[in-house]
Amino acid sequence: MSVTAPQGFEAAGVAAGLKSTGKPDVAVVVNRGPLKVGAAVFTSNRAKANPIMWSERAVADGVVEAVVLNSGGANCFTGSFGFQTTHQTAEKAGELLGVSSGDVLVCSTGLIGTGDEVFRAKVLTGTADAIGSLSDDGGEDASLAIMTTDSRPKRAVVTRDGWTIGGMAKGAGMLAPGLATMLVVMTTDAVLDAAGADAALRSATRVSFDRLDSDGCMSTNDQVTLLASGASGIAPDADDFGSALAELCRDLAEQLQGDAEGASHDIAIEVVGAASEADAVVVGRSVARNNLFKAAIFGNDPNWGRVLAAIGTTDAAFDPYDVDVSFNGVRVCTAGGPDRPREDVDLTPRATRILIDLRSGDASATILTNDLTHDYVHENSAYSS
Amino acid sequence: MSVTAPQGFEAAGVAAGLKSTGKPDVAVVVNRGPLKVGAAVFTSNRAKANPIMWSERAVADGVVEAVVLNSGGANCFTGSFGFQTTHQTAEKAGELLGVSSGDVLVCSTGLIGTGDEVFRAKVLTGTADAIGSLSDDGGEDASLAIMTTDSRPKRAVVTRDGWTIGGMAKGAGMLAPGLATMLVVMTTDAVLDAAGADAALRSATRVSFDRLDSDGCMSTNDQVTLLASGASGIAPDADDFGSALAELCRDLAEQLQGDAEGASHDIAIEVVGAASEADAVVVGRSVARNNLFKAAIFGNDPNWGRVLAAIGTTDAAFDPYDVDVSFNGVRVCTAGGPDRPREDVDLTPRATRILIDLRSGDASATILTNDLTHDYVHENSAYSS
Repeated sequence: MSVTAPQGFEAAGVAAGLKSTGKPDVAVVVNRGPLKVGAAVFTSNRAKANPIMWSERAVADGVVEAVVLNSGGANCFTGSFGFQTTHQTAEKAGELLGVSSGDVLVCSTGLIGTGDEVFRAKVLTGTADAIGSLSDDGGEDASLAIMTTDSRPKRAVVTRDGWTIGGMAKGAGMLAPGLATMLVVMTTDAVLDAAGADAALRSATRVSFDRLDSDGCMSTNDQVTLLASGASGIAPDADDFGSALAELCRDLAEQLQGDAEGASHDIAIEVVGAASEADAVVVGRSVARNNLFKAAIFGNDPNWGRVLAAIGTTDAAFDPYDVDVSFNGVRVCTAGGPDRPREDVDLTPRATRILIDLRSGDASATILTNDLTHDYVHENSAYSS
Repeated sequence: MSVTAPQGFEAAGVAAGLKSTGKPDVAVVVNRGPLKVGAAVFTSNRAKANPIMWSERAVADGVVEAVVLNSGGANCFTGSFGFQTTHQTAEKAGELLGVSSGDVLVCSTGLIGTGDEVFRAKVLTGTADAIGSLSDDGGEDASLAIMTTDSRPKRAVVTRDGWTIGGMAKGAGMLAPGLATMLVVMTTDAVLDAAGADAALRSATRVSFDRLDSDGCMSTNDQVTLLASGASGIAPDADDFGSALAELCRDLAEQLQGDAEGASHDIAIEVVGAASEADAVVVGRSVARNNLFKAAIFGNDPNWGRVLAAIGTTDAAFDPYDVDVSFNGVRVCTAGGPDRPREDVDLTPRATRILIDLRSGDASATILTNDLTHDYVHENSAYSS
């Protein structure tokens, strides 16, 4: 059900010919209210796509009526023509929905540099078609229409006492924090105000999508949006809502990790004993971005030397000669030296757990990443994105 | 001739059984003077191998009599036993050469965690054997003994008016600045003092080895050493010596790049129009470390979108919508939009030149890197380092 699981939302996904395969490529999600609360977080890349520049402004007042999303073209670095395409898309949706175009967000994903006249015509036609197909169980279709190299759609629903959050996500490559390459739309029928929605969204993404670092590459088009309809009539406690939203975000983040291009291992790097959470994150990320470590995991090699070489490049507080490293529960390095034999570690399962104890405090964080494989190289040398 | 090209040096390389192949694995370079000037720069990784911790202290007084180098084991994270091994190596060399052990540098390369009793015995025996084999044309043997996954030795000589600099290098993976994974020994018969040698070495490495970023992974064992014998009797102008040393370092850096594990392209990323040299370096490095860009080059795809997405993650001064990008002389992106067609670019040659004009100033820098290939993944998933 994804985004149409909560009350007050309609969605659709249609094929507009943007994908050469003829698969669905334009999605619309509409908030029928009574509240029209919206919040969004965006890529921190300075190279921003046109839909990002549009949506940043459109969401600023906390009011969002609808989101239009397309795959099959990023509309990034396509000049003022490309920005006009995004603007026209919002205007078309606003006109057909009877709302202000300034309350319509736009998201695009696909090849950078794609955004010509043909692209524009297909996006506009697709937007109209999708709005004509809106239904209160259209969430599944919408989740299919935002896929690019994804092998499967990502959907999740969290239900609490009388209110629900639903979400859909796409993303399979260029997955690095701030954010990973992803489009995410989440909807809830809880009663939220704009400030509460924004705070909950930022807090939840910080510990989920921002800790997914599949390949260290940050996209130009990332957007995570939360819409609240208030249709349940229930205003949950802020902590309750925040933890439910974080649960949904982590679920979607793990689905993204599990579908990362060409990966053969889903790696959770758990850093404990850090002096601060920031230290734990920077240490985890240094390992997640180390190609030699990632290639070793592909080869089922519990190479703790590469872990220490990676974390030694950070300025986090720890003594490199007083660190423990475990692979899948087997401590192979303690106090900067070998511990149990490498042969005791079984790295054949896809789920891989690296535990790094910095012995310098009580803070911790977990970074999710993937291994570096032949298939990753193949997919990213053959596919232009 | 490498390190024995200048007057006043002897060298040797012998097989001590550290490599399972039986190939040479211990090298010694000795300065016969009359000057015994030495300078060295080391990995900036906080995870330092035992020979780094030893050599940092030994070089501090600017006097170096000899360097002992081994392949077949990094002696890193091998505890106090490993440090004692390094200490004993320097003592053995000092005793046989009749010099202070505190004037002997030690370098090791190979698998992290290797440094047990067997390793120690072989290194000590190899050191004695190498010292027994010293000769004034032993530079070639020495350059062979420091190879690990290198497919060929790296040697270079620069001759000026009456004085010479020679050098040898090893390194094929874990090549990232500060320094790349490398051991380098350079020798000169020019008359230098310790301060001049140190200044020239730091200046030359900053624009050569520190701009080689093959895979973003920084090693625990990097060391670049310069020894001066003064045997030519000529004291060159500091600028002349500095430029000759930089030329030698760039030559060796390009040899390292050309032998990077599994690479099929040698990529020079030239950043011009930067507001500062530091900006040019950070922009070039962001591209050199972008796996999607590197995989695209492997696939002969001039994917300028990935270049812009990479540089957009930096805080360098430029407008992402006013940047030009050329691949092998063909400008495919101008002012944040498409320029000449991708089809005009020929990426089949191994030598690849990316030109990024930030249009924000007059500073420039070139970063050397390699593409991300199936063979890189294969070699680094199969080989433990």
